[in-house]
Amino acid sequence: VATRPITFLSDYGTDDEFAGVCRAVIARVAPSALVVDLTHGVRRHDVRDGAVALANSLPFAPPGVHLAVVDPGVGTARRPVAVRVAEDDRILVGPDNGLLSLAWGRFGGPVEAVDIATSQFRLEPASSTFHGRDLFAPVAAHLALGDDLGQAGTPVDVEKLNALEIPAPRIWPDRIVAHVVRTDRFGNVSLNVGHEDLAGGPLRLGEPLAVESAGERVGASFARTFEDVDPGKLMLYEDSTRTLALAVNRGSAADLLRLRRDDEVVLHPA
Amino acid sequence: VATRPITFLSDYGTDDEFAGVCRAVIARVAPSALVVDLTHGVRRHDVRDGAVALANSLPFAPPGVHLAVVDPGVGTARRPVAVRVAEDDRILVGPDNGLLSLAWGRFGGPVEAVDIATSQFRLEPASSTFHGRDLFAPVAAHLALGDDLGQAGTPVDVEKLNALEIPAPRIWPDRIVAHVVRTDRFGNVSLNVGHEDLAGGPLRLGEPLAVESAGERVGASFARTFEDVDPGKLMLYEDSTRTLALAVNRGSAADLLRLRRDDEVVLHPA
Amino acid sequence: VATRPITFLSDYGTDDEFAGVCRAVIARVAPSALVVDLTHGVRRHDVRDGAVALANSLPFAPPGVHLAVVDPGVGTARRPVAVRVAEDDRILVGPDNGLLSLAWGRFGGPVEAVDIATSQFRLEPASSTFHGRDLFAPVAAHLALGDDLGQAGTPVDVEKLNALEIPAPRIWPDRIVAHVVRTDRFGNVSLNVGHEDLAGGPLRLGEPLAVESAGERVGASFARTFEDVDPGKLMLYEDSTRTLALAVNRGSAADLLRLRRDDEVVLHPA
Repeated sequence: VATRPITFLSDYGTDDEFAGVCRAVIARVAPSALVVDLTHGVRRHDVRDGAVALANSLPFAPPGVHLAVVDPGVGTARRPVAVRVAEDDRILVGPDNGLLSLAWGRFGGPVEAVDIATSQFRLEPASSTFHGRDLFAPVAAHLALGDDLGQAGTPVDVEKLNALEIPAPRIWPDRIVAHVVRTDRFGNVSLNVGHEDLAGGPLRLGEPLAVESAGERVGASFARTFEDVDPGKLMLYEDSTRTLALAVNRGSAADLLRLRRDDEVVLHPA
Repeated sequence: VATRPITFLSDYGTDDEFAGVCRAVIARVAPSALVVDLTHGVRRHDVRDGAVALANSLPFAPPGVHLAVVDPGVGTARRPVAVRVAEDDRILVGPDNGLLSLAWGRFGGPVEAVDIATSQFRLEPASSTFHGRDLFAPVAAHLALGDDLGQAGTPVDVEKLNALEIPAPRIWPDRIVAHVVRTDRFGNVSLNVGHEDLAGGPLRLGEPLAVESAGERVGASFARTFEDVDPGKLMLYEDSTRTLALAVNRGSAADLLRLRRDDEVVLHPA
Repeated sequence: VATRPITFLSDYGTDDEFAGVCRAVIARVAPSALVVDLTHGVRRHDVRDGAVALANSLPFAPPGVHLAVVDPGVGTARRPVAVRVAEDDRILVGPDNGLLSLAWGRFGGPVEAVDIATSQFRLEPASSTFHGRDLFAPVAAHLALGDDLGQAGTPVDVEKLNALEIPAPRIWPDRIVAHVVRTDRFGNVSLNVGHEDLAGGPLRLGEPLAVESAGERVGASFARTFEDVDPGKLMLYEDSTRTLALAVNRGSAADLLRLRRDDEVVLHPA
């Protein structure tokens, strides 16, 4: 059996050796595995930020084992799990704190899960503070080698897995009330409005609008790409995940509007 | 046919999953490709910074497919291209905004190019804002698998490709008037003066000089390596790309002289 | 013979292409080598920080060739070396400035070493400022291919290799006088107190203590994992390397106590 590819996402950052040590553990167990680091730059302990990044990434990754570690509750009763999803025979490995839940939503939901807290695959002695190294990475590596999910831990009812809720936008005939989901390195701001929410709503591609936040209104266009507006100008667009987002051509929408995650943003057709 | 290696350089940073998603796409198309990340830390939208980093890196990389994405004009009329260079059968893939041009200059120039905007290899539906994922990465991966360049897009006249100009230094009998090309993490400052510009000029290895910038003069030595001067002292040296550069032993020349890219620097023999 | 895996640690950062170029050189020489980047985020020129990170990582990495570059004296008389250790047939490659010494201490010490300054494997012309690219990476790659250590350079007496000293803690019946070894991205602070130093000392897991630094005292618990204390509260714990460390649940111990490396910390049972 060919070794399956592994993707790896975390909030370990690149300043320290944490992500590298997990990679080293994988290299010991499954040296032939192709490992793709999605990012280790998830904001520290920000489970939702990691969940969004994972869900946005996996549809583009080869089916395999998907390791994700953003784990503020490491060492406590929160359950470490490995979860098989309905489609593509993909397996997600990480803490059961919602981190994996947006991703499994993209692949038909979970169909089988195991609690890996005392997995036969974990390193011994296992630390209380670095489960990435001692638990998640070796379990992911063994699963990539083809070991059965059932051998990695004890069964868990998939109905009892924890899922994150991203609040839904409110769509009115004259406005959309949205919230900030995340901002990226470029200052682009993702909102909780998907492609499917636009149908029947008040916004039309190519038309002007006003973006209201914290009582201030800024004019913008509903554009297709950054250069559709002048440098420094605000635009609304469907980003590469088909989510509504705000950007400033060659600037930062997050800075212009002083937006942070969970802030309310109201979109008014002009 | 063996899969060719791929190098990858971008301004996507490491905080977000952008570079990782491109890696994931490559892993889907060409799982056996060896992928080397050169850097994803190019300054945002800084095409010249990326072009210099790429040109400095590729002579040390195995011949293959060289993916580079610094693309402020993504989604506009700027042409996405794949370009074969005269030497080593290397293929460069990226936006035709000058990013690739310093690199092809190192390998005899471009000999064949295709516009890949509507490449059969792109992902569908292709976004307007993330061509790294939807266009450049899959095209690079297919070319690494051995697909013909001609199949990746429609022919482009290589004479019409865009090239960057790095301004030439002015070499006088008593001074060199140079400009800052880039600064690195260590505060070392590269100037637009190459090894070949030194012959016949006024500077001699081992001799003292004065570095003038913004009206201020600081004494320095033309040294070989950092420890040839005392800690905190300024030196001029030929860096590892055989380019003249300024450094401070265990310090930062960029900070000491408050230099930024394109600033003028005059080098006077003392 | 199978190519051996290579691990790579440096202070090159991720903003520039330095680490990537070294990876490119390895890919040229030993394309089939599995390369694991441990981290490139070691503090600039901080040999001890790099030495600790390397020593903490290697026990989890597959035996192979272990490349490490934190090299403030590049280009000077400091000796570049390749060192075989007593256990696992591991080979360390880097500058002989103490960087490798904590790691070889984990594997029975050095048993064979060569000076690689004029190694037949180095790139020509070799620069004076980028030995990672021109010397360390190609030597590591050749050793991964199975070339003999003796062919990589000229013999060095292992007794003459440079080793770092981490100062020992002072253990009193009523307190431990410790020093800060390093802090990580999460603000966790490692002290120079190992698991073995605790036996017979005054501290007991689960009990309260006071942490004194710069004349200030803060209450803490000797806990097992972060969530054993309330958010914002200070704790002492054995970290994943079995070293005593300070942390704040969902906060930063380094910030709370304004601690930097080498600062003295006194631990008093309450």
